Amino acid sequence: MGRDAFAEQYERGAEWPLTVAAVLFLVAYSWPVMEPFMAEGLRHACSVAAVAIWAVFACDFLLRLALARRRLRFLREHVVDLLVLALPLLRPLRVLRVVTALGRLNRRAASSLRGRAIVYVIGGVGLLGFTAAVAVLDAERSQPSANIKNFGDAAWWAVTTITTVGYGDRFPTTGAGRIAGVGLMLGGIALLGVVTAALASWFVEHVARQERDEADLREQVSALVEEVRALRAELGRSPSELESNEPGR
Amino acid sequence: MGRDAFAEQYERGAEWPLTVAAVLFLVAYSWPVMEPFMAEGLRHACSVAAVAIWAVFACDFLLRLALARRRLRFLREHVVDLLVLALPLLRPLRVLRVVTALGRLNRRAASSLRGRAIVYVIGGVGLLGFTAAVAVLDAERSQPSANIKNFGDAAWWAVTTITTVGYGDRFPTTGAGRIAGVGLMLGGIALLGVVTAALASWFVEHVARQERDEADLREQVSALVEEVRALRAELGRSPSELESNEPGR
Amino acid sequence: MGRDAFAEQYERGAEWPLTVAAVLFLVAYSWPVMEPFMAEGLRHACSVAAVAIWAVFACDFLLRLALARRRLRFLREHVVDLLVLALPLLRPLRVLRVVTALGRLNRRAASSLRGRAIVYVIGGVGLLGFTAAVAVLDAERSQPSANIKNFGDAAWWAVTTITTVGYGDRFPTTGAGRIAGVGLMLGGIALLGVVTAALASWFVEHVARQERDEADLREQVSALVEEVRALRAELGRSPSELESNEPGR
Amino acid sequence: MGRDAFAEQYERGAEWPLTVAAVLFLVAYSWPVMEPFMAEGLRHACSVAAVAIWAVFACDFLLRLALARRRLRFLREHVVDLLVLALPLLRPLRVLRVVTALGRLNRRAASSLRGRAIVYVIGGVGLLGFTAAVAVLDAERSQPSANIKNFGDAAWWAVTTITTVGYGDRFPTTGAGRIAGVGLMLGGIALLGVVTAALASWFVEHVARQERDEADLREQVSALVEEVRALRAELGRSPSELESNEPGR
Repeated sequence: MGRDAFAEQYERGAEWPLTVAAVLFLVAYSWPVMEPFMAEGLRHACSVAAVAIWAVFACDFLLRLALARRRLRFLREHVVDLLVLALPLLRPLRVLRVVTALGRLNRRAASSLRGRAIVYVIGGVGLLGFTAAVAVLDAERSQPSANIKNFGDAAWWAVTTITTVGYGDRFPTTGAGRIAGVGLMLGGIALLGVVTAALASWFVEHVARQERDEADLREQVSALVEEVRALRAELGRSPSELESNEPGR
Repeated sequence: MGRDAFAEQYERGAEWPLTVAAVLFLVAYSWPVMEPFMAEGLRHACSVAAVAIWAVFACDFLLRLALARRRLRFLREHVVDLLVLALPLLRPLRVLRVVTALGRLNRRAASSLRGRAIVYVIGGVGLLGFTAAVAVLDAERSQPSANIKNFGDAAWWAVTTITTVGYGDRFPTTGAGRIAGVGLMLGGIALLGVVTAALASWFVEHVARQERDEADLREQVSALVEEVRALRAELGRSPSELESNEPGR
Repeated sequence: MGRDAFAEQYERGAEWPLTVAAVLFLVAYSWPVMEPFMAEGLRHACSVAAVAIWAVFACDFLLRLALARRRLRFLREHVVDLLVLALPLLRPLRVLRVVTALGRLNRRAASSLRGRAIVYVIGGVGLLGFTAAVAVLDAERSQPSANIKNFGDAAWWAVTTITTVGYGDRFPTTGAGRIAGVGLMLGGIALLGVVTAALASWFVEHVARQERDEADLREQVSALVEEVRALRAELGRSPSELESNEPGR
Repeated sequence: MGRDAFAEQYERGAEWPLTVAAVLFLVAYSWPVMEPFMAEGLRHACSVAAVAIWAVFACDFLLRLALARRRLRFLREHVVDLLVLALPLLRPLRVLRVVTALGRLNRRAASSLRGRAIVYVIGGVGLLGFTAAVAVLDAERSQPSANIKNFGDAAWWAVTTITTVGYGDRFPTTGAGRIAGVGLMLGGIALLGVVTAALASWFVEHVARQERDEADLREQVSALVEEVRALRAELGRSPSELESNEPGR
């Protein structure tokens, strides 16, 4: 019981520091890539910071594993976290944790499932696009036959990929760059899917509401007609008509 | 109260003149771009007209800001208008105001949410495509290494981008051209999303209506069966059957 | 009245012959394009047949215009037919009339709105793809700088365009070819939209049905529980329990 | 009756062996394609195994045809199986049988229509992508003018095609490769359609549930208000108020 309480407290207390650490990691990773003529000392500081933050995340993972009641199940449920820790290529993806934090901040959007999905996908797609642009630039810059050589080209490539336009004026040629591209393409399918689905459910909802309002109006009108008919029947005192004044449908 | 009444009257009175001004701005902006061998005088007149209309929109913005009750809130709500005023690249977007005006004209489509969304997106995508084609031509024509050199190529590029086909035979190479391209791609996602969502909600609506009609029919048939059974029971005068003639199910 | 009856009879009687004529037109138009080394006599026969069938459609249009009660309204409603007659580029689109005829044949699919939409879009997209491939080949073959020079390339280009993949290994370079491409791209958006929307409405329908079935089951179970409780109460003859045996919800 | 019982027993007993055979066929087909410097003996063994498994599937088809009650109807319903048997190009598609088997294993997803559709499409798209990459590599490798020469390029091409990005840095140039490409494009449309439709129906379901819950709450609140009003009226013993305590809506 004491272990569970501590685990919960740790979870709550560590969320914001780890989110800030994820942002710092992205800065430490992307700044030297975007600025090719950086002072050597700063470049070194960035790579030290990246390793240090990686160590923080590794400690966090091990601590949470130690605190977990069922360790095998914890590993199975956090296999993505483990991959992000283990594979250098996936490390920048840690920044996607910011989206979850953002979603928790934006209370109004988070109250509806649709709003939350939109916040998550748009935020996630934005961060994914930036991260993939940096990763592709990092992988391609040193290749002589590559065609993505500065951050402007990398960002342009990321946008044409995520929207599935794909001109082909810029494209990755290395394995690492292509893996970043596959991530972007899947993000693009998610983006298009969520935008379309949110619009569709919004249309369906409004059409249903309009129809319900119309049905209500029709019911009220027919009730009114009944009232008027009953009144007329009573005034005319024709008993045969009085008997037949049931709702006519 | 007097200020509010004046603000409302101004809003209503200025709508159509400003829409016309937006169209004139697009003409003054796009004509010299599309016609490279224009007489120098006419070209000069167009650029003067563009600046004059820009000044009209700036005055309109300042006047509405002065009339607003809560100025900070007005600025926050009209940040897009402010950007369109301030950034030369975004100026042609002012013509999107025509779509709102069109939507207000087309009363029949505007009565349903779906119809309004379709009118807005198709009108907006058309204007966006034309504007982006002009902007890209303006940005690329003077670049020696660019591949969009006449309006035909620019329009073809705009269509391949908005439909997310993206052959890559024509693509922007300058920063301004790429920004126009990003606008088109987002417009293309909106176009595909709205078309699909409108179709989906139309299908859902018709399937639901068909099912409701079927349920009504089934109910009427079962009521009829009840009637016939009651009649037969009454004719046979079997009291035990009379008792059990409640609607089954 | 006599004119209206004749108009209706003509409409019904002319439908199938005109559909056959539309197919023959497509054959007479596409065969010489696909077979570059055709005998001169056959090529001449094809072009004569195409002109003759064009004349048949022109007569049909004029006859229906003459039979129409309100001619201006007829022209407004048949502006697409008029464009297809007048513009040589659009003539092959006449074959889309086959889709309507097919939709009428396929009774089972036609009974549901969704089935009809799918038949129309898939049939229309197939015919549009074939027609656009022929049109692009016709337009591009004689251009020295073009890259679509045989029917295989044209068909491949049509498929990559309609699915919005757009590699850019083949693309139209002439105005006529680009117009065919725009038609294909719009067809591709319609194809993707209808496929997605049909799937979405199918999912929505089944989820709703499943939920209704579940609610029915729950209702029956709670009625059963009521019955059992009432029985037990009666057996125990506890009047206080008997009073409280209302459905508990 | 004996024949039918045997047919059913055969169907059940042969399912898993045939699924394993389909996987082995894919291995025997794709391994030599992916490994260009394979030992000659192993290459020969693979091609023998492929022919042997093909023979197993042919025997299975003939046996099921012999066991069928109505043979023409069986042929009509299994025309895809027949095509896969007869056309060498389509043979690797046999592995799609694994998806059906997987769908049967995954009981939880299979219980809902939507879950089943997602499992089928994602599994099918994955297998289709792998199969198409192998087929394209097989077709293109020997062409001097082709640009897909190793499995990495083929897999990258498959991903860019299925997501409809289509850069055009890699594309098939042979007939067989283009047929594989068309299969991938149709798979990509299905993928995008199913993802979007599943999201849309999920949103629609949750919005409807939320609205129903809200309506329930409103009903309960209004019932409570009624109760309180009745109580107050009874305490005050004002008969006029007691009469008017009908639900106010």
